[in-house]
Amino acid sequence: MSTPRPDGRVERGNRTRRAVLDRTVGIASVEGLEALSVGRLATELGLSKSGVFALFGSKEELQLATVREAGRIFTERVIRPVVADPAGIARVWRLCEGWLEYSRGRVFPGGCFFYEVIAEFDARSGPVHDAVVRAQRDWSAYMERTLAEAREAGELRADADVPQLAFELVALMETANGVAVLHGEETAYRRARIGIAARLRTAAVDPLRVPQVH
Amino acid sequence: MSTPRPDGRVERGNRTRRAVLDRTVGIASVEGLEALSVGRLATELGLSKSGVFALFGSKEELQLATVREAGRIFTERVIRPVVADPAGIARVWRLCEGWLEYSRGRVFPGGCFFYEVIAEFDARSGPVHDAVVRAQRDWSAYMERTLAEAREAGELRADADVPQLAFELVALMETANGVAVLHGEETAYRRARIGIAARLRTAAVDPLRVPQVH
Repeated sequence: MSTPRPDGRVERGNRTRRAVLDRTVGIASVEGLEALSVGRLATELGLSKSGVFALFGSKEELQLATVREAGRIFTERVIRPVVADPAGIARVWRLCEGWLEYSRGRVFPGGCFFYEVIAEFDARSGPVHDAVVRAQRDWSAYMERTLAEAREAGELRADADVPQLAFELVALMETANGVAVLHGEETAYRRARIGIAARLRTAAVDPLRVPQVH
Repeated sequence: MSTPRPDGRVERGNRTRRAVLDRTVGIASVEGLEALSVGRLATELGLSKSGVFALFGSKEELQLATVREAGRIFTERVIRPVVADPAGIARVWRLCEGWLEYSRGRVFPGGCFFYEVIAEFDARSGPVHDAVVRAQRDWSAYMERTLAEAREAGELRADADVPQLAFELVALMETANGVAVLHGEETAYRRARIGIAARLRTAAVDPLRVPQVH
């Protein structure tokens, strides 16, 4: 008989926490953050209600932890693959392709997690709204920075309007996600890629650096 | 003492129906269609629960009636002002401006009603999902038709890709709505107008027909 390690309870708690969040990000991407309830999660995962409560304290805490977990997964899938790339158009392109693949591959079963919860919380107020706003700002800011660095690297024209370009690229990606999830069609991703390539070509010093998309 | 007209009950029912739907489109644009409940509406409007039930039958019927009512208001505000305009770029522009004004003016308190409920129902199935899909398709189709007519009128180039253009204009408008509602900022509407003007200028036979936007 082995002696339990002193941190066994903590480890078990962490494991349960991960199992709960793995489920909540999936539920929230389809049904929204309001669909999360401690009772439902306990039933679905075969845990005690008090156990889930002990880990998250309240529905709001559970929602906030879910937003953080989705942000972690998003960073892992979309941001991390390009952080070490040299600044330039190729990096912008890879970032956009990564985002579309994150949506198309249904990393979250309901498509982009943030598209879902932004629509849900945009017109409300409180800590969950604030966390969602922050996540959206971080992503827009990252897109802007990636474009600004491509401009500094001399690949985008000096007069390229970076915030406008970021707004337009994000609009194409998010709409592709929305249309594809709604209609179950893949055409929208192609349209987004065509639009992104056209925008980058207009802003590029050398348009031939932008991939051809058909 | 006046004799009640024989259709008094029907009229009262219609009045109540309108009052309920007036409230439900507002609630749904902020909190989504799942937030509609017969009990809540009865309390908020000082009606009996059984009275609301008699008019709508079920929560799903209430949701469907709300989607129809929002569609009616959308048509009234966005489509009707341009239907009699002659085909051409000016009509496309007025349609887009009308949409942005519909979002900015908060015709629905939560911004575009359909932006909210599409995100809510996109990954689900059932009659409400189908009604929302249909509404989105109708709007996209109307935008495409308006662009196709502008091309037939000789104002857009013969090789303009109308479905692609429609996708991009709708993306700019919906993202402006999302960003503006989320961050409480108006800049997004300006960005959308700049993007729409740029897209139309590229597709126009005479780019000077497209308004200058700053």
